[in-house]
Amino acid sequence: MPQIETILTPALFHLYNNNLHEKQVVVIDILRATTTMVVAMENGAAEMKAVASLEETMNLKNEGYLVAGERNGVKVEGFDFGNSPQEFDRHLVEGQKIALSTTNGTKAIAACEGAKYRYVSSFRNITAMLHKLIENNCDVLLFCAGWKDKFNLEDTVFAGALTHELFKHNFTTSDDATIMAHRIWLQGKSDLTTFLADASHVQRFKSLHIESDLEACLKFDTYNQIISL
Amino acid sequence: MPQIETILTPALFHLYNNNLHEKQVVVIDILRATTTMVVAMENGAAEMKAVASLEETMNLKNEGYLVAGERNGVKVEGFDFGNSPQEFDRHLVEGQKIALSTTNGTKAIAACEGAKYRYVSSFRNITAMLHKLIENNCDVLLFCAGWKDKFNLEDTVFAGALTHELFKHNFTTSDDATIMAHRIWLQGKSDLTTFLADASHVQRFKSLHIESDLEACLKFDTYNQIISL
Repeated sequence: MPQIETILTPALFHLYNNNLHEKQVVVIDILRATTTMVVAMENGAAEMKAVASLEETMNLKNEGYLVAGERNGVKVEGFDFGNSPQEFDRHLVEGQKIALSTTNGTKAIAACEGAKYRYVSSFRNITAMLHKLIENNCDVLLFCAGWKDKFNLEDTVFAGALTHELFKHNFTTSDDATIMAHRIWLQGKSDLTTFLADASHVQRFKSLHIESDLEACLKFDTYNQIISL
Repeated sequence: MPQIETILTPALFHLYNNNLHEKQVVVIDILRATTTMVVAMENGAAEMKAVASLEETMNLKNEGYLVAGERNGVKVEGFDFGNSPQEFDRHLVEGQKIALSTTNGTKAIAACEGAKYRYVSSFRNITAMLHKLIENNCDVLLFCAGWKDKFNLEDTVFAGALTHELFKHNFTTSDDATIMAHRIWLQGKSDLTTFLADASHVQRFKSLHIESDLEACLKFDTYNQIISL
């Protein structure tokens, strides 16, 4: 039976990267990189490229990309977009190639290069993601981007949501992080907004006056496609 | 108000070691190092010394210590004890100095040298530990020893149990790992044995035929003293 493992932060990635070429990896950065990537694609972007460094992102402007990014939650000066899913309106992104660099998410994406399959996902395309993971039927790594290498609640609860459905389809685990994520999901699923209200990232949002992003990041299944890298 | 932070595995320690000299650290290795240390002390050991390496432990034999230790859950050849709390009977340990080296716990203890206060604790002396943390009234680091740098459930649930009580005494947190640990505790506290039944370490115990250790590790308040290092 395919195994599920959950990487709670990028600082733990090295403990899970054996046989990476045989695994399917889902990178999770709910607030906000992987949510934003889904929103841009659902609004018609031609391509969403994740880039680890700001310099490399800026260079892509010369190749016709719109550039997006934040550091410490704040839009980078001179960039076309920050990292808020609410910025990526259809009239701005349709048909456009976009390069995105963020504090955590895009670094996690870079780390797991070499995986058999590499996806980004969020609540906004969770069902499409699940269908693909089940279809692939191989070991799964749920890779939470965290916050500056620390654990965060919102990525973990999403890993738990995926786990909950995968358990119904012959996937299993012997990984305590996955068991914990699943239980956190069961505890929080009926009211995620309240469940996450104490989370450090939500508090950070409040201090940056971007609370409405949270609502955008907790919408389910607005997009019925996967994002494969 | 004093802050609580939870280090989910030793691989994340570097993210939390700023101002260590102002913090009180509780090292947690429920299965089994910190439980075993409490049991040895409650059965009258004169001293319990945590040692990172097996070589250093063996050398202490010449200084009159009984030596105890495991690697990968198995007793080290030539040692007086393994790491099972059930081995440390009063008639064997009373008045003795004991040196212990384990796969995870004693390494975590070594890592946080330099803290203002450094303790080991387990369910067996949780109330005494809480009284001391509250009395000290400074920032708390709950340091889960984990398993080979991975997250584990049993250490986290104990961190959550401490957090639950500290919240009643003016301690607070903005750390997602602590919030998660607290919620895991609330979910599991009514029946810890069942809650931990899926945990990877409990499965490892079963494979090593040491299930009865689990029961010994989940007893509450058999010892009313703290263990300070």
